[in-house]
Amino acid sequence: MSWEDNVRKVVPYVAGEQPKDQDVIKLNTNENPYPPSPKVAAVIQGFDCDILRRYPDSDVSALVDALAERHGLDREQVFVGVGSDDVLAMSFLTFFQGKKPILFPDITYSFYDVWADLYRIPYEQQPLDETFRIKKEDYFRENGGIVIANPNAPTGVASKRSVLEEIVGANPDSVVVIDEAYVDFGGESCVPLIEKYDNLLVVQTFSKSRSMAGMRIGYAMGSRKLIGCLNDVKFAFNSYTMGAVAIAAGVASVEDEAYFAETTARVVATRERTKRELARLGFVFPDAKTNFIFAAHRSVPAQEIFDALRGNRMYVRHWNKPRIADHLRISIGTDEEMDKVLDFLESYLNGR
Amino acid sequence: MSWEDNVRKVVPYVAGEQPKDQDVIKLNTNENPYPPSPKVAAVIQGFDCDILRRYPDSDVSALVDALAERHGLDREQVFVGVGSDDVLAMSFLTFFQGKKPILFPDITYSFYDVWADLYRIPYEQQPLDETFRIKKEDYFRENGGIVIANPNAPTGVASKRSVLEEIVGANPDSVVVIDEAYVDFGGESCVPLIEKYDNLLVVQTFSKSRSMAGMRIGYAMGSRKLIGCLNDVKFAFNSYTMGAVAIAAGVASVEDEAYFAETTARVVATRERTKRELARLGFVFPDAKTNFIFAAHRSVPAQEIFDALRGNRMYVRHWNKPRIADHLRISIGTDEEMDKVLDFLESYLNGR
Repeated sequence: MSWEDNVRKVVPYVAGEQPKDQDVIKLNTNENPYPPSPKVAAVIQGFDCDILRRYPDSDVSALVDALAERHGLDREQVFVGVGSDDVLAMSFLTFFQGKKPILFPDITYSFYDVWADLYRIPYEQQPLDETFRIKKEDYFRENGGIVIANPNAPTGVASKRSVLEEIVGANPDSVVVIDEAYVDFGGESCVPLIEKYDNLLVVQTFSKSRSMAGMRIGYAMGSRKLIGCLNDVKFAFNSYTMGAVAIAAGVASVEDEAYFAETTARVVATRERTKRELARLGFVFPDAKTNFIFAAHRSVPAQEIFDALRGNRMYVRHWNKPRIADHLRISIGTDEEMDKVLDFLESYLNGR
Repeated sequence: MSWEDNVRKVVPYVAGEQPKDQDVIKLNTNENPYPPSPKVAAVIQGFDCDILRRYPDSDVSALVDALAERHGLDREQVFVGVGSDDVLAMSFLTFFQGKKPILFPDITYSFYDVWADLYRIPYEQQPLDETFRIKKEDYFRENGGIVIANPNAPTGVASKRSVLEEIVGANPDSVVVIDEAYVDFGGESCVPLIEKYDNLLVVQTFSKSRSMAGMRIGYAMGSRKLIGCLNDVKFAFNSYTMGAVAIAAGVASVEDEAYFAETTARVVATRERTKRELARLGFVFPDAKTNFIFAAHRSVPAQEIFDALRGNRMYVRHWNKPRIADHLRISIGTDEEMDKVLDFLESYLNGR
């Protein structure tokens, strides 16, 4: 007997590498190539630091209100956390306490099984079809909850809202979490379904489309009942998750809709151009609705291309896992960054 | 059957009131009356906000290193989280997975039983003696873990390090968490025991002595083994808990040791003066080693004094709970704030 016998054993999530080297073209963690809104910088740089001696607003009211207005919801329908990972971790703890397995796709955000294991929640992974699409019938069975990333990661594939509505509607006795981390780059959001289904929780983040991964802000939207349950668990975990600077910076971002629309459109335009170039170079990929493309080359192994890119200080993501080992996940950078990567790929593939 | 059957039922923690009104003398949540170090403000106001588009350092290396140096430890002995509540919540989840009850005092930080309930951890509360002191023998029995706040809240009573060392040493098969949220105001820290006991976890915070409650920074110190276990669970919950601004601001605070020493000494001086005045006004209290005093009046009920103070826009904390209902917890403000409160109390008590 030792204290180690009482320790919770877990297998942690492994995030993409964060090289300290500034000289790298970093397309491995789906960060936005553009900075946050200048209004965010203005709020941070003008922040009255004396108020930091006080606890922040545990209800995060200013940011909850701004998000509620942005999405046409009431403040009782919005929950804010320390990035969407915090919101999702809290959601697993809050909503998936049944004995039946929760369901999510076999190829998806690789934190879902980590959270399930952390909280000892049974789960069953449902195989995507050969084109990486969800088969909705897989979710028409008994379950203790459902989690679907839409658009999905790392595939970039988006499901239609109507398909997800069928899943939500068929499972009134389960909470269905739709993880919309990438929705702003071209997916159909399920937010319009919230008024209709009290079991639907939609999760979004400031880390991708709002260029604020470094600030740690994510949020959930759903029925008043769902959000009430999430808040109860949050207030049993940490009353003050959101610092005062993060709250103020988040509000500034939400208020600058024009900047958000402009930078998001730029990323989408670069993505569409990158798709054409990758296709020309012999890559195949599902139609990405995200700020990344999940591409396999017709003849060259992904690991070889990954190593070649890395040798040239160009970081993308590769998983040596069943069904996806031939793919690379390439985040969308600036046009200049993508040109450098595409030029390198062209000369590398031609020179083999 | 409904999704609500799968929801985790909890009774959330209730924090002290945070009035929006700026005109209040707020002595109810143990906040520091002085602002954070001017170096913290300089770092925030000069922050390069463009880097917020990137994920922060998930290892929080800069702040971990600064704290390790400050406390004479290695970086593998320090864990940083979103306030000490986050660190404690994570510690309960990580270390208290046994079937035996964990032990903590009956009068202490009222989040301990909330976390135990959240994670379905059995617990037994050990009664303090009549002078609000820990009886060490209460912790010499089988248990699944031990949590002791030192100095304790809301009593302000400090235990000697030698007493806590006896408890840590008697329980090699349990993790013993010493919550030192208030230690900088006069307690004896258990950090010097860390090299000797691999089952000792010491938790501190930036919210009190560093005037940074609004920034959300707390940390744990312990053996490499303990800190490794905490990191595994953290990386199975949220890889990026600490935002880039918080990390930079935290480092700036740790580096300004002179400001920390000066403001902490001012709070202590004001507390000692306040003790003398409260005694003169007929209050009794254990010797507080914290930035608050836990005081009962010899003849006037606490609820009555609480209401009178509140009616005059002076907020202190009162719990209508067994054994402590006759006490008020009064945070130490500036000298000017304490003078106003003491003047009011004098005229109120004389005029009854």
